[in-house]
Amino acid sequence: MKAGALELGHASKTTKSGVNRGMSILDLFIRIIAIIATLGSAIAMGTTNETLPFFTQFVRFKAKYSDLPTFTFFVVANAIVSAYLVLSLGLSIYHIMRSRAQATRIALIFFDAAMLGLLTGGASASAAIVYLAHKGNRKTNWFPICQQYDSFCHRTSGSLVGSFAGSVLIILLIFLSAIALSRQSLNH
Amino acid sequence: MKAGALELGHASKTTKSGVNRGMSILDLFIRIIAIIATLGSAIAMGTTNETLPFFTQFVRFKAKYSDLPTFTFFVVANAIVSAYLVLSLGLSIYHIMRSRAQATRIALIFFDAAMLGLLTGGASASAAIVYLAHKGNRKTNWFPICQQYDSFCHRTSGSLVGSFAGSVLIILLIFLSAIALSRQSLNH
Repeated sequence: MKAGALELGHASKTTKSGVNRGMSILDLFIRIIAIIATLGSAIAMGTTNETLPFFTQFVRFKAKYSDLPTFTFFVVANAIVSAYLVLSLGLSIYHIMRSRAQATRIALIFFDAAMLGLLTGGASASAAIVYLAHKGNRKTNWFPICQQYDSFCHRTSGSLVGSFAGSVLIILLIFLSAIALSRQSLNH
Repeated sequence: MKAGALELGHASKTTKSGVNRGMSILDLFIRIIAIIATLGSAIAMGTTNETLPFFTQFVRFKAKYSDLPTFTFFVVANAIVSAYLVLSLGLSIYHIMRSRAQATRIALIFFDAAMLGLLTGGASASAAIVYLAHKGNRKTNWFPICQQYDSFCHRTSGSLVGSFAGSVLIILLIFLSAIALSRQSLNH
């Protein structure tokens, strides 16, 4: 690895700054995909609403995402993360222009990590509830609700995908930023 | 920020490598605290077991963490993260000795981010279940179980603390590594 670093150190500055720019552009693309994933998740969950075709005299059977507080947290978490990602696009574009920027990259890594925590938190909490809705739990007498609320369950399960995909993308973003930071040193 | 970086660039190499070493030592300490937090969480949850003092002819009322699959996931996630952190101590010590190491720092940031995802995932999923155990959910007819299994609920709720604390510490570790990577450049 040392030898490789030295070799890179001798390479021309133009090539290196080209590679750095390429990584910054990749960073921008990943952010855009992550925005689509998390925003899609938030919208898919936030519009989940099922009314069953039968009802009694007193009760109309409805299931909404907000019936379960965890799903509300999921929507909020995904909305916050996608809003953050939209804002971070500005810095990402700045990094394409100025490949030597350091302080802003460190800030991005820090906030990316915090957002990763929030996003996986929301996704996993909802996954735990979705699992319960599908399988129930006999020990605690929590019965599965997916037999009745079939489309509700499908919708909520599906909306988890975008959120988990977003988490993986953010891990990738942190990795890219770390590489970009380490490559700075070779430019000096 | 630029001016500050330039000033640092002019500072003596000895001071900088001292600061870098200090950050590496801080990294080591945070890792040790995170190991204690996650391992404590895993053990606290893994030993949760409550047998109620009354029973019928056929049923003895018991609550174990493994009755809820999410809690099993929590124990596994915390165990994996603390094992990873123990292994990462080696690299952390290596960074104290060699403050210029880059590739290993990038690897650490990547794995730290992945472990952050796993840890917040386990903690949040369990938090969703603990919330349900405390409050229940009327819409889905999932009743709270904490009236009966009081000590079980206290124990499981408490074990979340270490896990969330561990998540915050790992975000801090990622931040420290990013700063360390950016400071490399000033040494060249």
